[in-house]
Amino acid sequence: MRAYFNSDNYAPALPEVVEAVAAVNHGHEPAYGADSVTARVRDLIRAELGEHAEPFLVLNGTGANVIALRAMLRPWEGVICAESAHLNVDEGGAPEVVGGIKLLTVPAPDGKLTPELVATRIARIGDEHAVQPGAVSVTQSTELGTLYTAAELRALADQAHEHGMRLHVDGARLANAAAALDAPLRALTADVGADVVSFGGTKAGLMLGEAVVLLGEDLAPSLPYLRKQSLQLASKMRYVAAQFEALLTGELWRRAAGHANAMAARLAEEVRDLPGVTLTQAVQANVVFAILPPGVAEALQREWGFYTWDEHTGEVRWMCSHDTREEDVDAFAAAVAAAVA
Amino acid sequence: MRAYFNSDNYAPALPEVVEAVAAVNHGHEPAYGADSVTARVRDLIRAELGEHAEPFLVLNGTGANVIALRAMLRPWEGVICAESAHLNVDEGGAPEVVGGIKLLTVPAPDGKLTPELVATRIARIGDEHAVQPGAVSVTQSTELGTLYTAAELRALADQAHEHGMRLHVDGARLANAAAALDAPLRALTADVGADVVSFGGTKAGLMLGEAVVLLGEDLAPSLPYLRKQSLQLASKMRYVAAQFEALLTGELWRRAAGHANAMAARLAEEVRDLPGVTLTQAVQANVVFAILPPGVAEALQREWGFYTWDEHTGEVRWMCSHDTREEDVDAFAAAVAAAVA
Amino acid sequence: MRAYFNSDNYAPALPEVVEAVAAVNHGHEPAYGADSVTARVRDLIRAELGEHAEPFLVLNGTGANVIALRAMLRPWEGVICAESAHLNVDEGGAPEVVGGIKLLTVPAPDGKLTPELVATRIARIGDEHAVQPGAVSVTQSTELGTLYTAAELRALADQAHEHGMRLHVDGARLANAAAALDAPLRALTADVGADVVSFGGTKAGLMLGEAVVLLGEDLAPSLPYLRKQSLQLASKMRYVAAQFEALLTGELWRRAAGHANAMAARLAEEVRDLPGVTLTQAVQANVVFAILPPGVAEALQREWGFYTWDEHTGEVRWMCSHDTREEDVDAFAAAVAAAVA
Amino acid sequence: MRAYFNSDNYAPALPEVVEAVAAVNHGHEPAYGADSVTARVRDLIRAELGEHAEPFLVLNGTGANVIALRAMLRPWEGVICAESAHLNVDEGGAPEVVGGIKLLTVPAPDGKLTPELVATRIARIGDEHAVQPGAVSVTQSTELGTLYTAAELRALADQAHEHGMRLHVDGARLANAAAALDAPLRALTADVGADVVSFGGTKAGLMLGEAVVLLGEDLAPSLPYLRKQSLQLASKMRYVAAQFEALLTGELWRRAAGHANAMAARLAEEVRDLPGVTLTQAVQANVVFAILPPGVAEALQREWGFYTWDEHTGEVRWMCSHDTREEDVDAFAAAVAAAVA
Repeated sequence: MRAYFNSDNYAPALPEVVEAVAAVNHGHEPAYGADSVTARVRDLIRAELGEHAEPFLVLNGTGANVIALRAMLRPWEGVICAESAHLNVDEGGAPEVVGGIKLLTVPAPDGKLTPELVATRIARIGDEHAVQPGAVSVTQSTELGTLYTAAELRALADQAHEHGMRLHVDGARLANAAAALDAPLRALTADVGADVVSFGGTKAGLMLGEAVVLLGEDLAPSLPYLRKQSLQLASKMRYVAAQFEALLTGELWRRAAGHANAMAARLAEEVRDLPGVTLTQAVQANVVFAILPPGVAEALQREWGFYTWDEHTGEVRWMCSHDTREEDVDAFAAAVAAAVA
Repeated sequence: MRAYFNSDNYAPALPEVVEAVAAVNHGHEPAYGADSVTARVRDLIRAELGEHAEPFLVLNGTGANVIALRAMLRPWEGVICAESAHLNVDEGGAPEVVGGIKLLTVPAPDGKLTPELVATRIARIGDEHAVQPGAVSVTQSTELGTLYTAAELRALADQAHEHGMRLHVDGARLANAAAALDAPLRALTADVGADVVSFGGTKAGLMLGEAVVLLGEDLAPSLPYLRKQSLQLASKMRYVAAQFEALLTGELWRRAAGHANAMAARLAEEVRDLPGVTLTQAVQANVVFAILPPGVAEALQREWGFYTWDEHTGEVRWMCSHDTREEDVDAFAAAVAAAVA
Repeated sequence: MRAYFNSDNYAPALPEVVEAVAAVNHGHEPAYGADSVTARVRDLIRAELGEHAEPFLVLNGTGANVIALRAMLRPWEGVICAESAHLNVDEGGAPEVVGGIKLLTVPAPDGKLTPELVATRIARIGDEHAVQPGAVSVTQSTELGTLYTAAELRALADQAHEHGMRLHVDGARLANAAAALDAPLRALTADVGADVVSFGGTKAGLMLGEAVVLLGEDLAPSLPYLRKQSLQLASKMRYVAAQFEALLTGELWRRAAGHANAMAARLAEEVRDLPGVTLTQAVQANVVFAILPPGVAEALQREWGFYTWDEHTGEVRWMCSHDTREEDVDAFAAAVAAAVA
Repeated sequence: MRAYFNSDNYAPALPEVVEAVAAVNHGHEPAYGADSVTARVRDLIRAELGEHAEPFLVLNGTGANVIALRAMLRPWEGVICAESAHLNVDEGGAPEVVGGIKLLTVPAPDGKLTPELVATRIARIGDEHAVQPGAVSVTQSTELGTLYTAAELRALADQAHEHGMRLHVDGARLANAAAALDAPLRALTADVGADVVSFGGTKAGLMLGEAVVLLGEDLAPSLPYLRKQSLQLASKMRYVAAQFEALLTGELWRRAAGHANAMAARLAEEVRDLPGVTLTQAVQANVVFAILPPGVAEALQREWGFYTWDEHTGEVRWMCSHDTREEDVDAFAAAVAAAVA
């Protein structure tokens, strides 16, 4: 392949992340998160997400999301989310199997919930035959590359709280959102009333690692148990923590995510007006969705790595990452132009 | 602390492991295990555990064990294991919650199952009111530092198969066992008829990573789904794989585990005959269990790191790892001698 | 209330059913289904649903459905069903909690799946991130009072089998369907290729009791375990069995369901042309759905029992049962006519 | 068989129970427990178990127990119970599968927990790797026919509460216990500090039906959801309620259970001194356990119904019920005498 636009999961880790891991590889440290590196990272996350934040490092995004939901929901409660939510389409049934959780989905063509959409699932309250809505989950940036503004999040949090629900932010790409909106992380989480955040590390440039961050005050005692039981407790936690420490030092996360966003914007600009190319979503973070003329995607995929998103419509997904190069974007855009010509 | 004998989870990773991670940190690689490093590691594991082995990399030991059990058991089946099994006492209820699995425990003072012990739980076959025994799980080396010989494992595998059950080996410390018995890994797994192995990486010297290895032929199609659903699928898998590649190259695992075993043997020899010190288990792998006179443990713990294993009896656990130094063992043994004098 | 059109669950049991229970209330009988009455009922069900049918009596409809799904699905598989399926909206999350089962729903305005709708959920086969479709579940008659013809069921079964899936019939009101279609029960189940049927007793006129009927050959060994484990095994089974024996003797079920159907048809005819009354579904079984002018439902509900089905649209549901009387239907229709006049 | 001593589940229902069911079989009643009969039964249960009692009718004993545990426990908590508890040996893994609940068992040769036994499982509090003890469950009368005195129960409740746990009473045979101890039901439940009771109906003489009775104040809101989700909500609830109404009217339960107890006592007296017969448990309720000379059980079982309890020791179980006749007891005792002679 000449370059990959498949996924930010295909990208390597940031060099600083690997260096940080090497730097902590000496001597004994208490296991399971009682080490000194984890302590520092918890402080760093609090500095970003608010002094009341309670961060718990975990191993992958599915794990972060499932633990977040388990922490928020009682057994008869479900979570309202978009049909396109990773929770619904890409967790392999983990919420249902590990948490017994029903997803109360709503169609959302741009991947974003609105109070109006959420309201359609606030129904049959008190009816024992119906799973009760206990939380709302939004993905920021969404699976479709769109963004919630702080005001939009605030409205969803307020609505959730009015109905006794909590707001979860699946922030696998929270760094991209904060970079795109030029906002502090807390402006999109604690400050808008979010209760639990899955703060993504892997797609932001780690080798491996996410954090469940509690912003309310009452859920913290349950988290250590839920993390262990949900198969997400690392024994040599320092190696997860060191990666986060690098990411959170000097806003490395913002630089990396900002670059990925810029590359997606550059690509979108270069292909937007090509005949036969239709961008299907607003390009607000690090991904471009497009529909191409029949056969074009297949031809391009012989030299360039990217996924077909929807086999029925031919929609494709081009994702950029911290290491995407301008010259690759330009060459790929040129290849698209040539292919549709 | 002057030195730590708490856990092989307190130890750092082997330097070769961290170097290997740095070495793969360039360029894009397909996610979720379709990368080139994972392909090489799968071959390396097959070279160790047999050509029919089907290895799947996962994130931690609890995950490996739960996936192994889920792969083997139908919903109404349970697993026979020792009361002291990690599965029973240290998984935070994960088998029950994630897999709905009942553990059919038997008391085993030295941590080892025998066909006689297993036979006590092969009962009420066909009775719908009773959880049916579907598998036997042994830990090798055991949580109490003891070992199964190949012949002992073969007897348990044969018994399991005669009753339509499978044999699982929780090999979080399989490297220690193979080093201690001076045996190839396959001599303790595939060759004795084991069906599924949790092949431990973290305690063997990785930063993080284990493998579920299937040795039978029929379970492989379910594993990808179970791994994803059980929250154990790494997206940037190369970073787990690279660690295993280092560990499996040139039998690094054997050297590291052999050293840890030797340090435990050295420590045992140095304290065995001290007045007031009673070793409570055979020292066959990398850990020493002992009962000390009242107050001695607490005094030692002011300068030396180790855990009290049983608060009622005062039994303590001293665990060695790949980086335990002879001089630390000697100094610690001297401290014990002084304390009991 | 002058009469109830709330639910066939509000109705009493058929007199023959209670008499049958009294008739078996003497002497000791083996528990858990090994009694003589259950043996006779199993034969009666086989006479109705086919000689290969394997019936298992259970306690309620949610139980029957959850056991049916658990029998058909592996842990990473979900079931395709209509959004309006009882499974999805009225089981309180039981499939998710008890079975870890994800429901793969499709919108179906008349409550009926079609091969085209099902096809939209046969996707991402072999992708470990996506719950795999393992079964299709239809409700017959549907929650909206509509019916599947035998040919429609056959098409769904064929499609399911072509894709390695099974077909489940939630037959809580299978008696109504068979009466309405003037068909034998087997013509709507075994003969069309259904694999598992939840054969409803309660709504057909029992006090309490349903049957899970397996029509394939390979699932039977698991059923006793799943029934017990899913909290659906009656100890004094004869009291469930005796009810079914009465229902299945001399086609009592057909007479009872046929009457309920006829009452719904009568009601529909009497209100269909009233100004302001819009019937929203075809009236094919024992229920009428209608939208009334604002305020009319509330006025009627002061004297007549029935439910508002959709608070947003004002749609109401009028359900008839085996004991609904012609004079009540006529009086109610007259009340509706007066209210909308 | 000349007579059955297999189980109180083999016995028919009390005639009053069947009559009560017939008596309510007219007219429509709201479903799911909103009917008038259920309202009366809830009052009757409060009259027996205390004014703060919150009763919920369910379908079977496994269901009652699983719901009780689910109501009491958080996901990382387990329940301390005797190894011989029905929960542990006869629920088919339902607590593990439906509730994800780990049972923290202790050996108890007479089936009874003591504070000393319970104390052995109150350990590793706050350790996320260990399932935390969240409740204690006792069976009254026990599976071995023994009884807890009110003082013994009080001690267990006090201990549980001191450690932040709740006390559950599996009262499948609570009627037998209250009859044997000549105590009001509340003296063995509310008055001793029990938090949740599974109040058994089936073994007390119903066709089918149990009640989960909450005695604390905070669990009630969750119960309707847990009952529905745990597959234990009857739609035509009046038919369960009517049975309980009969049982609770005029202390029918006490007369029936008292008779069963008396028959067991009579049998025990008649065989106690026979050569070769060893009673293995105190006979305090409605069951006799005995060891017979080799071959005797098998010979008796050709004419008399009873179970071998332990195939290894040859221990047998003889259970009496509300309809066991004195002449059958005497004839059976004579048969035993003849067989061992």
